[in-house]
Amino acid sequence: MAREDPEPANARRAASGRPLSLGLVQLAVGEDPTRNLAGAADAIADAAARGAEVICLPELFAHRYPCQREDTAHFDLAEPLGGATAEWLSKRAAAHGVVLVGSIFERRAPGLHHNTALIFGPDGERVGVYRKMHIPDDPLYQEKFYFAPGDLGFPCVETGRARIGPLVCWDQWFPEAARASALAGSEILIYPTAIGWQFDLGEDEDRAQHDAWETVQRGHAIANGVFVAAVNRVGFEPTGDAPDAGIRFFGQSFVCDPRGRVLARASADDSQVLVVECDLSLVEATRRDWPFLRDRRVDAYGALRSLLDD
Amino acid sequence: MAREDPEPANARRAASGRPLSLGLVQLAVGEDPTRNLAGAADAIADAAARGAEVICLPELFAHRYPCQREDTAHFDLAEPLGGATAEWLSKRAAAHGVVLVGSIFERRAPGLHHNTALIFGPDGERVGVYRKMHIPDDPLYQEKFYFAPGDLGFPCVETGRARIGPLVCWDQWFPEAARASALAGSEILIYPTAIGWQFDLGEDEDRAQHDAWETVQRGHAIANGVFVAAVNRVGFEPTGDAPDAGIRFFGQSFVCDPRGRVLARASADDSQVLVVECDLSLVEATRRDWPFLRDRRVDAYGALRSLLDD
Repeated sequence: MAREDPEPANARRAASGRPLSLGLVQLAVGEDPTRNLAGAADAIADAAARGAEVICLPELFAHRYPCQREDTAHFDLAEPLGGATAEWLSKRAAAHGVVLVGSIFERRAPGLHHNTALIFGPDGERVGVYRKMHIPDDPLYQEKFYFAPGDLGFPCVETGRARIGPLVCWDQWFPEAARASALAGSEILIYPTAIGWQFDLGEDEDRAQHDAWETVQRGHAIANGVFVAAVNRVGFEPTGDAPDAGIRFFGQSFVCDPRGRVLARASADDSQVLVVECDLSLVEATRRDWPFLRDRRVDAYGALRSLLDD
Repeated sequence: MAREDPEPANARRAASGRPLSLGLVQLAVGEDPTRNLAGAADAIADAAARGAEVICLPELFAHRYPCQREDTAHFDLAEPLGGATAEWLSKRAAAHGVVLVGSIFERRAPGLHHNTALIFGPDGERVGVYRKMHIPDDPLYQEKFYFAPGDLGFPCVETGRARIGPLVCWDQWFPEAARASALAGSEILIYPTAIGWQFDLGEDEDRAQHDAWETVQRGHAIANGVFVAAVNRVGFEPTGDAPDAGIRFFGQSFVCDPRGRVLARASADDSQVLVVECDLSLVEATRRDWPFLRDRRVDAYGALRSLLDD
C-alpha cells in the first residue's frame, strides 16, 4: 500500500511529548465520614507517591451517595464552597504539591444546592469551580430533588500542569458538554462519577450498561481530540428502605487518549488507585490527523439549542 | 441486589416491537460504471429477496471515489438531482418495493457541486435529499476541491417504514450532526460511507483508526437513543499517480442499536450484503431508561455555535 511520505505524521510526532501523570482514585464509600476521609487521604498519598501530578476523586466522595431517596435531612451534608471538605481538599493538594479534583454537595444558600466539582492547585489555592450542568433523575438517582442545575457553563481550568475540563457524572452522556469544554480549551475532560447498577437485570444488561457508559465517553475523546478520565465510586451502598435495596457502583474508572484508546481501567469490585502516563502532545497530534474542529458547521447548529426540532 | 419493581422497565418493553429489516450493501467499486451498477443491482435484489425493507448503498457507489486527487475532469462524473443515477435508484426502489438510500456526485450548477444522499420510496418517488454538511480535506480525500458544503441542514426523512436521518461519511465524526438529525425526529441515522486506510501505518494504527470510527458512531447511537448504520465501500482503489498509491476502503459496514450494541458487522475485505432485523420500538424504550433528551441544557449551549470559545 502507498506510503506517499516516507515519514508520515504519525511517526514525526513520536519524538516530541508533553508527559502528564494522572491519578484516578476509585473509592468505596462507607457510613463513617472520618474513615472516608482517611481512606481518601491514603489513596491521594499513594497516587502522589507514584508520581501523579493531577489527582481526581469520585463524585461526592466524602459521604454516602445521598440521592437514592428524597430526604430533606440529607441537606445536612451540604457545605459552602469554602467549607470543611473544600478546606481538606486544599490541604491535601498543598501537602503533596499536586492538582486535586474533588466533588462536594454545595450549599449555596438555604434551599439552593449544587453538585459541584472543585479544583485545587499545588499550593492549595482553589483554581476552578464547576457546578454540574446536567442533573439526572432516575430511580435511586433522584438528583433533581437535591441539586439546582449549574449556572457556570462548561469551563476550562488552567492548572499549570494541564488545561482541565471538569464535568460530573451525568454530563458524561451529553456530547454538548464535552464539545463545549473542548472548545473552551480543555485538553482532559475529568468526570468525578457515581454510577452503578440499581436493579438486578442480569449480567448481559450490566455489561451493556457499562459498555455504553465507557463507549459514549470514548466517543467524546475521539470527536474532540482530548483525553477523557472518569473516576467512579465502587461497591454497594444501601438505599436504607430494604436490606438489599441500593446501588452497586460499578467502578471501572478509566482514562482514554484522544484516539479513544483506553489506557487504563480499574477494577469493577474494589477501591483502586490508577496512575496513568498521558502524553498531552497527542491532543494536537491527533487533531492534525483528524481535523474535525476545522470543519464544524457552526452556521447550521441552531437546532442544538432547542429541546426538539419540531 | 435490589429488584425494587418485580417487572422492571426492561422486561415490560420486551412484549412490544416494531420490526424493520435493514439492508446494508457493502461494495467494491471498479473502473467500469456498467459493471458497478450491475453489481449494485444484484446486491439490492439480494437484500430485497432476504426481506430488507430499507436498503442503503455506499457513498458515491456508481464510480470510483473521485477525490483522491484534484482533477477538474472528475466533474464529468457529476449529475443533476434527477440524473441517470437518480433515475436508476428510483427504478431499483420501485422494482423491489423498498426504501433505497443512494449517494451521488451532484451537479447543482456549473461550478457548484455537492456530495448528496438521495432516498427513494417503494413507489420509486424521491422522498429525501441530503447534501453532505461536513466536507473533509485530507490527503487522498480532497473533497473541499469538489463539493460545496450542504445547505439543507440535517433532515429527518419520513419514509413510511422508518424516520431516517441521512448523513454522509465525514459527518460520522460530528456529534452535532447526529444530535440535530435525532432532534428532527430520526430513528435511524444512515451514513453512506467511503473510508479506508490511505497509508501503510501498520496493523495497530489500522485497527485504532477503524475502532475510533465505529466507536464514535456507537456513541451517537447511545447519546441520542437511535439506531446507526454505516455502509462503506471496500477494497483498494488506486490514486493513479503510482502503482501502489491509493485507498484501501476498510468495509466493516455495521448497524448498532440505541444502546450502542453492534448488531452486525460486514467483512473488511469483500463486498457483502447484510440484512439486519432492527426493533424500532427500542428507540423509545431506550430513551425511557436513559432520558438524556429531557436534561439537555439548551440555555447553555451557545458556545457550540462558535469555532472556539476564545
